[in-house]
Amino acid sequence: MARWTAGAKERLQAAAFEAIRARGLESVTVAEIAAAAGVTERTFFRYFADKREVLFGGQEVLLATWVEHIAEAPADSDAGRVVVEAMRAAAEALFPNERRSSSRVRGEVIAGDIALQERESLKMRALSAAVAHALVERGGDEVESALAAQAVVGVFTVAFAQWIAPGESRSLAEIQDDLLVRLDALLPRS
Amino acid sequence: MARWTAGAKERLQAAAFEAIRARGLESVTVAEIAAAAGVTERTFFRYFADKREVLFGGQEVLLATWVEHIAEAPADSDAGRVVVEAMRAAAEALFPNERRSSSRVRGEVIAGDIALQERESLKMRALSAAVAHALVERGGDEVESALAAQAVVGVFTVAFAQWIAPGESRSLAEIQDDLLVRLDALLPRS
Repeated sequence: MARWTAGAKERLQAAAFEAIRARGLESVTVAEIAAAAGVTERTFFRYFADKREVLFGGQEVLLATWVEHIAEAPADSDAGRVVVEAMRAAAEALFPNERRSSSRVRGEVIAGDIALQERESLKMRALSAAVAHALVERGGDEVESALAAQAVVGVFTVAFAQWIAPGESRSLAEIQDDLLVRLDALLPRS
Repeated sequence: MARWTAGAKERLQAAAFEAIRARGLESVTVAEIAAAAGVTERTFFRYFADKREVLFGGQEVLLATWVEHIAEAPADSDAGRVVVEAMRAAAEALFPNERRSSSRVRGEVIAGDIALQERESLKMRALSAAVAHALVERGGDEVESALAAQAVVGVFTVAFAQWIAPGESRSLAEIQDDLLVRLDALLPRS
């Protein structure tokens, strides 16, 4: 990638979030997002298919991070341990508390729009499929890999919603760990 | 509902499955589904928004069955027990082994069409939201209700895929029970 576009994607995301927070998704245009980020519209479309897709750039990074950690996990780790460690590492690398307020803005925008909720749901489904595939790639049983993927994406989904809830101060990793303990306690033993 | 339409929905579903299995979703028309079921097109559209929606009629019944069982669960049952019992009861009531072959046909049709997979994914999201809501309605904590809902819908999703997998002979309820044990074993204890 040419030197002059370094950071363009991040600048576009920040500009889009700021504009959407200020005036709502509908009234914001790609032209003004691009202008605020100091790039052309053409550069915008190199990174994102449309203005809504800017809201989901983080999910692609999340998917890549999880898959990478799963692929690099020790060969003797079992599937549950591997996905939980990947979720923990991704939370620490991608969602430090400094990102909570922009994630809250994003969450509010998505909560107010059915089509965005659907897009988010499909991204989470893709995440689950990618996690299952990564577990199978390292030799996991298909059913167990699918089960581990569903469980960890479910925990992540609930944890993320809690992380951006009003008044929450714990880190995403702490919330995830808490939910894993609660999930374990929830499962009936018969 | 008028007497002459009794069973029309079920006949439409059976006719649609048969026609889709024989010639594929694209070439089947609402007119021929209606004719095969002995009803008018207008009757078809009273039950289903389009021919694709016929494939998802069972999910609405599933949602209603789960929610009903959750609402009627003993007040002193904890969330995990309640959702697991609801999942077990729904499997026994709605998915006896006699329905496995039509569910396989449905699964193959959906697996071959990205838009149908997305529609299925959104229905499962609605199921999870409805389960969480039903748990909150009976006094459950919001986070724990969401967690229990995600977990049980995840187990159901993997169990259902296994139930219709080639060569599988166990009942859906048995597979679900097995996966609950495996999920418990998967969760790391630290």
